[in-house]
Amino acid sequence: MTGFPPPDSAGRITRSFGRQPAMKLIGAELTRVEHGTVEIELAFDEKLTQQHGFLHAGVISAALDTACGYAAYSVIDADASILTIEFKVNLMSPGRGERFLFRGEVTKPGSNIIVADGRGYAISDGPAKLIASMTGTMMVVRGREDIAE
Amino acid sequence: MTGFPPPDSAGRITRSFGRQPAMKLIGAELTRVEHGTVEIELAFDEKLTQQHGFLHAGVISAALDTACGYAAYSVIDADASILTIEFKVNLMSPGRGERFLFRGEVTKPGSNIIVADGRGYAISDGPAKLIASMTGTMMVVRGREDIAE
Amino acid sequence: MTGFPPPDSAGRITRSFGRQPAMKLIGAELTRVEHGTVEIELAFDEKLTQQHGFLHAGVISAALDTACGYAAYSVIDADASILTIEFKVNLMSPGRGERFLFRGEVTKPGSNIIVADGRGYAISDGPAKLIASMTGTMMVVRGREDIAE
Amino acid sequence: MTGFPPPDSAGRITRSFGRQPAMKLIGAELTRVEHGTVEIELAFDEKLTQQHGFLHAGVISAALDTACGYAAYSVIDADASILTIEFKVNLMSPGRGERFLFRGEVTKPGSNIIVADGRGYAISDGPAKLIASMTGTMMVVRGREDIAE
Repeated sequence: MTGFPPPDSAGRITRSFGRQPAMKLIGAELTRVEHGTVEIELAFDEKLTQQHGFLHAGVISAALDTACGYAAYSVIDADASILTIEFKVNLMSPGRGERFLFRGEVTKPGSNIIVADGRGYAISDGPAKLIASMTGTMMVVRGREDIAE
Repeated sequence: MTGFPPPDSAGRITRSFGRQPAMKLIGAELTRVEHGTVEIELAFDEKLTQQHGFLHAGVISAALDTACGYAAYSVIDADASILTIEFKVNLMSPGRGERFLFRGEVTKPGSNIIVADGRGYAISDGPAKLIASMTGTMMVVRGREDIAE
Repeated sequence: MTGFPPPDSAGRITRSFGRQPAMKLIGAELTRVEHGTVEIELAFDEKLTQQHGFLHAGVISAALDTACGYAAYSVIDADASILTIEFKVNLMSPGRGERFLFRGEVTKPGSNIIVADGRGYAISDGPAKLIASMTGTMMVVRGREDIAE
Repeated sequence: MTGFPPPDSAGRITRSFGRQPAMKLIGAELTRVEHGTVEIELAFDEKLTQQHGFLHAGVISAALDTACGYAAYSVIDADASILTIEFKVNLMSPGRGERFLFRGEVTKPGSNIIVADGRGYAISDGPAKLIASMTGTMMVVRGREDIAE
């Protein structure tokens, strides 16, 4: 699933990401868009934590779902859009770190259903640490005006 | 799983919830704590939305995970704490509404592993609408100072 | 989701179940078909066990997926069929018992996607014991000859 | 997670697999055991199918869960055992083929919880086709006589 996205795909994804207030709220940045692969990064911020001071599972889910959703988005036609039907998240290590990287990749493309897998990493000094994984099921949607782009 | 929580359980949960900056960030309130059942509510806010103007799946996940986690918390001993190992979320309807209610309930208590199920509802005029469900697996943790309460 | 199924629904489900060699292999019987709810039962058999002598998780999954799939089937039109896209199973107690009951229920009907939840119980003397739960996502399929009924 | 397993690990896994009647029932063979990776294969058999003639999702789950469970088993101490807590399966393509290969790999080792990912492939003429994926959460168990090996 590597290679260049369709001509407009990166632009559509960047514009769509920019229209997500929730991504702004958590300080997420879109740092990589390729055919089938999207990455999102964010800096640790105390306001994003749970009661033990670690990154909240909801923030991890938000970033992974967004990365997986746009990974699916990168492989569809320009007149279609993506809806997340469901996802599963495994939380493997506490969300402790200076920065976090979330990568979504298309595992199975399709004209109706796309499956994407995501990984979340904590980055400080030293090697990145795997903190979470996601498998998400996305539906390709056409002709719904409330879900354009 | 109904009934009164252990004497201190509601207090511990309320205090712990109050120490979650991410819950404050999304404007979530703890509105019900019983033995095995916890509810969280939040008002619609444009800053919590994705690109189509609906509540972001990450916000839904954050609220459901918190409700399920505290539901598990309400059935354990006072010297233990809860870690979410994993969860699955099904997104059933767009997160459109004036307010949202998230209920977590313990399906299977246990001394090591607790399974909780959650449901999210959008509330406007008329009957509440089911927008999401969660099944989460929680681990009972003892003797870890970084995860007390 | 209670009530009577569409006139032919129970008949279609019974016929379809009868065409599942894998259900015959594990000795499963279809014991209840209502609008939105389907139950499957099977007797303990040593050939269905894993290395500790408990019912194998794959057998539990097979029965729960079938119950959930037909529960979805019971709420769709006569010209449509159902495909399982994905499911999650929580194994809560060892599969120990004389008989097992698996119930699938539609949580969220839909014209494209149906979400069903299942529960598995071990039955011996005394009350039934919850051994497993499933949440499954089903797709409504039309016009595919390889997946009729 | 590649490399040689602990001295006795492959032997323990092979013996344990041989004690699984359900694996015999579906004709599964253990074809690869390495540190963190286990593969299981089986031939298509009409008795393993659902109503459309494809491999039943329960058989796919049984094989993937077994591969993931033994992958976890391959990285633990000789005095411990493994219990599957939960798993999620995505069914990506119909289970059509002459043979099927199921690979389980440890994604995150741990002293209490191990996360493993599995992939299932249909094999006929031509390249193997991805038909299913699993993410499973396993618990490391010690001192339970009913779950030795």
